[in-house]
Amino acid sequence: LRGSPIIGVTLGDPGSIGPEILLKALNADPNPQRYLIFGSLRVLQHHAEMLNIPFSSTQIRIEDVDNISEPYFGPRPKQSGPATIDYLERAFEFLQQNRIQGLLTGPIHKESWHISGYNYPGQTEYCASKANVSEFAMVMVGETFRVAVLSTHLSLRDALPLVHKENIERKLGLLYRELKRLGFDPPKIACAALNPHAGEAGAFGSEESKEIAPAIAELRNSGILVDGPIAPEVIFRQAAATKKWDIILSMYHDQAMIPIKLLDFERCANVTLGLPFIRTSPDHGTAFDIAGKGSANPGSMIYAMQLAWDWTLRTQQ
Amino acid sequence: LRGSPIIGVTLGDPGSIGPEILLKALNADPNPQRYLIFGSLRVLQHHAEMLNIPFSSTQIRIEDVDNISEPYFGPRPKQSGPATIDYLERAFEFLQQNRIQGLLTGPIHKESWHISGYNYPGQTEYCASKANVSEFAMVMVGETFRVAVLSTHLSLRDALPLVHKENIERKLGLLYRELKRLGFDPPKIACAALNPHAGEAGAFGSEESKEIAPAIAELRNSGILVDGPIAPEVIFRQAAATKKWDIILSMYHDQAMIPIKLLDFERCANVTLGLPFIRTSPDHGTAFDIAGKGSANPGSMIYAMQLAWDWTLRTQQ
Repeated sequence: LRGSPIIGVTLGDPGSIGPEILLKALNADPNPQRYLIFGSLRVLQHHAEMLNIPFSSTQIRIEDVDNISEPYFGPRPKQSGPATIDYLERAFEFLQQNRIQGLLTGPIHKESWHISGYNYPGQTEYCASKANVSEFAMVMVGETFRVAVLSTHLSLRDALPLVHKENIERKLGLLYRELKRLGFDPPKIACAALNPHAGEAGAFGSEESKEIAPAIAELRNSGILVDGPIAPEVIFRQAAATKKWDIILSMYHDQAMIPIKLLDFERCANVTLGLPFIRTSPDHGTAFDIAGKGSANPGSMIYAMQLAWDWTLRTQQ
Repeated sequence: LRGSPIIGVTLGDPGSIGPEILLKALNADPNPQRYLIFGSLRVLQHHAEMLNIPFSSTQIRIEDVDNISEPYFGPRPKQSGPATIDYLERAFEFLQQNRIQGLLTGPIHKESWHISGYNYPGQTEYCASKANVSEFAMVMVGETFRVAVLSTHLSLRDALPLVHKENIERKLGLLYRELKRLGFDPPKIACAALNPHAGEAGAFGSEESKEIAPAIAELRNSGILVDGPIAPEVIFRQAAATKKWDIILSMYHDQAMIPIKLLDFERCANVTLGLPFIRTSPDHGTAFDIAGKGSANPGSMIYAMQLAWDWTLRTQQ
């Protein structure tokens, strides 16, 4: 594997479905040696035994972070908060030493972080902070769509004021640079409208004419072509039918999530762009309610592993 | 056809694709005699000739409203405004006399109505006013989904305040009664959330706990079961995968339109529920840019015609 990238994979919450989907995904992967696991070997072995999932510690690469003395299932915030931070810290050391080139983060329980005193909204913000990056983009990548979101975990009411020119301009610029770095040259980008029928010439809202169109015009002035704003009910259908865009920028969380979950369910994953490395994650949480039952679907984890490897390779070419 | 319903079909804007899709849909229908056209025979004949669409006035039923002396293509507000109102007025006379039992309205140009002094936001409001009805629901019906919208043509900003308890309760109650009348007994109804992850227990918005859940609870008290609020990224996927609901109430226009246009494009149509009769319409506008070119797709018109007939029949059983 000389010259091939190695992808770090954090275990995620040790009481969650994280270990289970990781074990299943490693078994499904044609080349599991390209991943390096950051987490408790003891936990992995326990989950494998309890759930009857084949596991050989000699066939996978693991950086054992032995911080859970008695494996368990379910939420235990005071144990899992520090444990999941440990896995990430160790992975970041390896990133800084270039011993891994990409990162996949397993699911964590945000509540456990808050209870344990780690004041990051989530792993995305943790990664940005560790990498000294203030601008990043959350992108959902699936078989049909690649969709970035202008804002993520906010109420719809709070997401509306973020639909402003500078914000859209910055996000589109970031997507352009990052996609170019990934080999999409030039990147074909489309920008969704916010309002029904793209505002119908101002009758149903002014964000299209006052914020989105001027942002797109600014980019055009600097030589970056972006299609839009395109009505929400049109852009996803056209994207699916024609595959003519490499990425779509959506104006709020569900505008992106509804179509991608509909067409690419379990065949999609999250990517954070804007970091010095590619970081992916499965598109679901800890699912404590089914932890330890063996029924967790590894689809998105498999997709996230493959994607982290593919896109990290792209950045090196 | 004794005892079978007759569906009135208005021509729509005479310069639009309305006549073309009507002609194509009539040719595609196994039993065109169950429709009665309200519009200009002269216009229909002109469109048929210009576009080479087979048309025999002896094989279709038409109430000729001869108000366009020289047929044309494109927008002519001062002619099409009064002309389209004439077609609707005549159709309403027939509805009142029970000579037709359902209605399909062809596409009109709202601007032409405003220029001509008809102050209805659209045909839905015209129908509600003529029928003395103040409460109605716009529903998109497709092969995969039936989705009602809490609010229709408003900016997203203006749609948010309408997500309030009484409004949701009234709309769900109306859907329940109307679906029951249509033979869904009992109707299986689901209600979408407004915010990402259904508000994630209040972290991303309070409408779920303060407005939507209390509305659903009120209905339960009166014996009407409604599932929800369910996260927007979950409800449409589950509906498509399981078909377990007869209808979904969505909280704003695009929440409904994105998924239905994605899965049911050209196999869906609008229905207005709450009127004394079933009224349908194709899910597109006048499309003046392609009027007279022969390229208009009659898919949604065919669907709207079939649906008007099927659902009118259901109300009579």
